[in-house]
Amino acid sequence: MKKRIVTISRTYGSGGRIIGQKLAEDMDVPFYDKALIDRIAEETGFSKDLIENAEMRAKNSFLYTLATSLGGNGDAGVDGLSLNDKFFLAQVNVIRQIAEEGPCVIVGRCADYILRDMNEASKIFICAEMHNRIQRAVQEYGMDETTVENEIKKIDKARTNYYAYHTGRKWGDVLNYHLTLDSGYIGLEDTIAVIEEFLERRKY
Amino acid sequence: MKKRIVTISRTYGSGGRIIGQKLAEDMDVPFYDKALIDRIAEETGFSKDLIENAEMRAKNSFLYTLATSLGGNGDAGVDGLSLNDKFFLAQVNVIRQIAEEGPCVIVGRCADYILRDMNEASKIFICAEMHNRIQRAVQEYGMDETTVENEIKKIDKARTNYYAYHTGRKWGDVLNYHLTLDSGYIGLEDTIAVIEEFLERRKY
Repeated sequence: MKKRIVTISRTYGSGGRIIGQKLAEDMDVPFYDKALIDRIAEETGFSKDLIENAEMRAKNSFLYTLATSLGGNGDAGVDGLSLNDKFFLAQVNVIRQIAEEGPCVIVGRCADYILRDMNEASKIFICAEMHNRIQRAVQEYGMDETTVENEIKKIDKARTNYYAYHTGRKWGDVLNYHLTLDSGYIGLEDTIAVIEEFLERRKY
Repeated sequence: MKKRIVTISRTYGSGGRIIGQKLAEDMDVPFYDKALIDRIAEETGFSKDLIENAEMRAKNSFLYTLATSLGGNGDAGVDGLSLNDKFFLAQVNVIRQIAEEGPCVIVGRCADYILRDMNEASKIFICAEMHNRIQRAVQEYGMDETTVENEIKKIDKARTNYYAYHTGRKWGDVLNYHLTLDSGYIGLEDTIAVIEEFLERRKY
């Protein structure tokens, strides 16, 4: 039987989360987005707020590197690991555990990198052009029209820095994914249909 | 009616050229690979050999930039343009002309960038893992097993440099494509089927 694991990475406002949720429903497997945060919080004792905002702390690459590598955030333990490092390690462990448990869809959280050696996990990236992302951010997430583009760019930057720091890879490098799609080009529903066609045909 | 234009960018040995050829056959539209080189040669007077090896001259980024920006190659004309620049401009003109003529599939030659503002042109990137690329390069292109990996890396580097110099973009950045696929993950035939499913669903 195919071990149906799918990781979804996505640019903010591309609809990647909704796509992941719909895929999980159609595949009838667990969906890990908020549920992943709950699970990490439960297993590590870190607060959900801290986990949810992990990426955004990497907005400033220099300060993030400094805080992380020097055991910053005022709480480096006797093991010399900073809070950022400890949190990432907890995330690695929980995601590996989830993938071992069986079929699922995981959104974000560097899951593509964490499961890089698990070939049966299909790595997918969803992007969209800026005008599509702005539209979704304003209409569906209620972001302010006057500042939304700037906010989206900040989130992109934070994700790029966070991913680069913890994985040593470039976020959104085509070589890291089995399939990538611009969701604005054919629309969300058709994007989901193409992904399902792809998943049906995978060898693992 | 949909203006069925498809550009295929690809890593060497990923089967992108064969995929493009099969798509063009199935869509019953012209396929531009060698035919593009013939056409550029015909319209510009440049030799086919020169055109075919344009990318590989960018193997050394520094020397390529020097030769190109300083009007090197010993032939900068009164217009101050080097041979590399002139050749790229000719390529831009021929590719735009081809796209205006009607439906087609174009492989390589920065066509994704050249037609970036033509939204009805679907931009696709094909990649594959190194072991798949080595296998194809040895078995189908007859490359030497002992040096093939090194040769593939040189080609990657040349393509990256050439693309960066002429387009100001990063080659293989997911944001430049509507669809990217790892052809080794589901195999060539299934990759073609997924692309055709995608093309059927595009809005343009």
